[in-house]
Amino acid sequence: MQNWQPLEGSLTTPRGFRASTAAAGIKKGGGPDLVLLFTDAPEAVTSGVFTRNLAAAAPVIVSREHLSRTRGRCRAVVANSGNANACTGRAGLRVAQETARATAELLNIQPEQVLVASTGVIGVPLPLDLIVSQLPALVQNLSPQGGADVARAIMTTDTVPKSCVLRSERGGTAVHLAGVAKGAGMIHPRMATMLAFITTDLGIGPRMLQDSLLAAVKTSFNCLTVDGDTSTNDTVLALASGLSGVAAHPGNDSPKWFREGLTQLCQTLAQMIARDGEGAKKLVTVEVYGARGPSDADRIARAIANSPLVKTAVAGNDPNWGRIMCAAGYSGARFDPYKTDIRINGFYLCRKGLDAGFDEAAARQEFDRKDVTLRLDLHQGQGTARIWTCDFTRDYIDINASYRT
Amino acid sequence: MQNWQPLEGSLTTPRGFRASTAAAGIKKGGGPDLVLLFTDAPEAVTSGVFTRNLAAAAPVIVSREHLSRTRGRCRAVVANSGNANACTGRAGLRVAQETARATAELLNIQPEQVLVASTGVIGVPLPLDLIVSQLPALVQNLSPQGGADVARAIMTTDTVPKSCVLRSERGGTAVHLAGVAKGAGMIHPRMATMLAFITTDLGIGPRMLQDSLLAAVKTSFNCLTVDGDTSTNDTVLALASGLSGVAAHPGNDSPKWFREGLTQLCQTLAQMIARDGEGAKKLVTVEVYGARGPSDADRIARAIANSPLVKTAVAGNDPNWGRIMCAAGYSGARFDPYKTDIRINGFYLCRKGLDAGFDEAAARQEFDRKDVTLRLDLHQGQGTARIWTCDFTRDYIDINASYRT
Repeated sequence: MQNWQPLEGSLTTPRGFRASTAAAGIKKGGGPDLVLLFTDAPEAVTSGVFTRNLAAAAPVIVSREHLSRTRGRCRAVVANSGNANACTGRAGLRVAQETARATAELLNIQPEQVLVASTGVIGVPLPLDLIVSQLPALVQNLSPQGGADVARAIMTTDTVPKSCVLRSERGGTAVHLAGVAKGAGMIHPRMATMLAFITTDLGIGPRMLQDSLLAAVKTSFNCLTVDGDTSTNDTVLALASGLSGVAAHPGNDSPKWFREGLTQLCQTLAQMIARDGEGAKKLVTVEVYGARGPSDADRIARAIANSPLVKTAVAGNDPNWGRIMCAAGYSGARFDPYKTDIRINGFYLCRKGLDAGFDEAAARQEFDRKDVTLRLDLHQGQGTARIWTCDFTRDYIDINASYRT
Repeated sequence: MQNWQPLEGSLTTPRGFRASTAAAGIKKGGGPDLVLLFTDAPEAVTSGVFTRNLAAAAPVIVSREHLSRTRGRCRAVVANSGNANACTGRAGLRVAQETARATAELLNIQPEQVLVASTGVIGVPLPLDLIVSQLPALVQNLSPQGGADVARAIMTTDTVPKSCVLRSERGGTAVHLAGVAKGAGMIHPRMATMLAFITTDLGIGPRMLQDSLLAAVKTSFNCLTVDGDTSTNDTVLALASGLSGVAAHPGNDSPKWFREGLTQLCQTLAQMIARDGEGAKKLVTVEVYGARGPSDADRIARAIANSPLVKTAVAGNDPNWGRIMCAAGYSGARFDPYKTDIRINGFYLCRKGLDAGFDEAAARQEFDRKDVTLRLDLHQGQGTARIWTCDFTRDYIDINASYRT
């Protein structure tokens, strides 16, 4: 069993995938905003995890239904940026359904084999004709090199495209895993977060793919917060072509091996999202050790990662550890503040609940990095947790005070 | 039974109270930062509500204990700004206890009749000598006019002092209620929030005072959020001198009458805090009607009031109602988005879950006010809720990125 290694490539690096992008005029400011991803493998297996927001967007409702109706046998994804097609009622549902139907006709597959995803402004009708008029060109332009442009075409307030490709071998045969993601605001760990599309050429059954995806999402995208707002459109889709010649089977180590690769891929993408959080200058990792149990650790890590006061202090290089203790204190977890140590990148700010007597300039220097780890040791038990977030700057306010207009 | 009317005055307007302030050098930048409030009535009744943060500050622990030991018969409050005396361990507890002891000696009362409160930076030792050296002058300067300076002396990042005085009559005799509050950041509705001191000259028993205070706090300070951070120091104290000549008795309408006045006082102070939220330009009232029940209404109102995306949109006068629906959608409450109306100040942004087709300029004008009410009508039941918050501006970030230094 070989480890998964990073590889140059794109979403179409795994065998059996083609993609194309277009500028449909949906995203303000222009640029590519429409994506088609297609697998040539008729036996491809697909899986998805979606937002738990009650006001789920039309594409979420439609994709969830298509995955269920085909029992995980979809073959195409159409995604747009610039408009979420959320809070758009029956008209919005029709746009999502018609997008799938028109795409299926051109690809000569069933409508329910097409998944749809949208991201952008909420509550504004998504013009169907802008999408449908681009579909023939998108189908015609499908290419095994097309994956390179996908990550950029699904960006909204993201400042960098986010993609990751991994490679491993089984019995001398290469297997690939690739993923793209978008997301910078309206991101919260309680749910499957933002848009992410994942491809692999591993052969795998629908049940095992879904189980692997749920497990990977739990320790990656669901450990991510930018602003505590859970979107209406969060969607993670995984497509497996099976064309590598390697298949995962229950009963040997292959499910574990695949899950490890998928988790590594999703964690890499999740960190990219946190680092590119709206207005963010830093990736902040919150680690909690020694809690009474995993749920206490999780509560504390999430309270700290969601605290605007902690995140503004990180932005200002202010070693204000009292805010970290305060957030832990209101998290609902049980612990003894006077047994707790707080460190930044291994540098002690607080020992047993009291100021560690640190050098202010040295502490500020620890905060003044692109990667900051806040670590709490509670010394109460074995519970651990890790959450990714970012600092909170004026730019977040500027971006969001005028997002719509 | 007469209504409670606003009155010019201060915390010492109710009969039987004196106060004084001093600049003890605790708050950076100087200025008054120490307060002594005293009631001359030996039979005075006191009550308190405190933070539920696990990392409660030393003064919270000490005051809670003193209220319990005296069964609500305290007579003095010593409060400082500039240092929270939180995360300060045994040394911090000793500072709070010694403050009470030294004050009691000068006032010739028992140490447990003195309550203490602190607000400011966490995790920094509070120098006892700075306080103790000011106590003789504070006691000497106690004056029935001293209440006028209290609100200012407890300010930290507040930009305006917050006080409110009410007057009512029973059988031709005047009764007074007065309160001051401080708080602009680290404010969250799950707990009794920030510092507030309340005086009245009504005669009232300890049990009835505590019940009234809990009821008033529930619909005032606990319906308030600035940033979702619950402080280590939140304290609301009420002192009743009984010197008006009017007493509240169970069995007639006086408990209800007093509770109404106390609620009106606390709601006024809570709104002042929201309006003065760190960096805030607007008071935002979130109202939810027609939920399945009160807890669903409460969840939705709090999710909206805590959403950075909603609050930045309000700051930017951006009628982005999709973010309001999104927050309601992830609140955990059950409702049908497509039955929901959303209004700002009575102006429809969304009808039955869809864009109301509003005039953009007119909508922006509605947002561009000092008082903004966001109202959701769910049309599902009788549940209602109201939460106060503020908009979210760059200034919040600027204030908090360098609070400590």
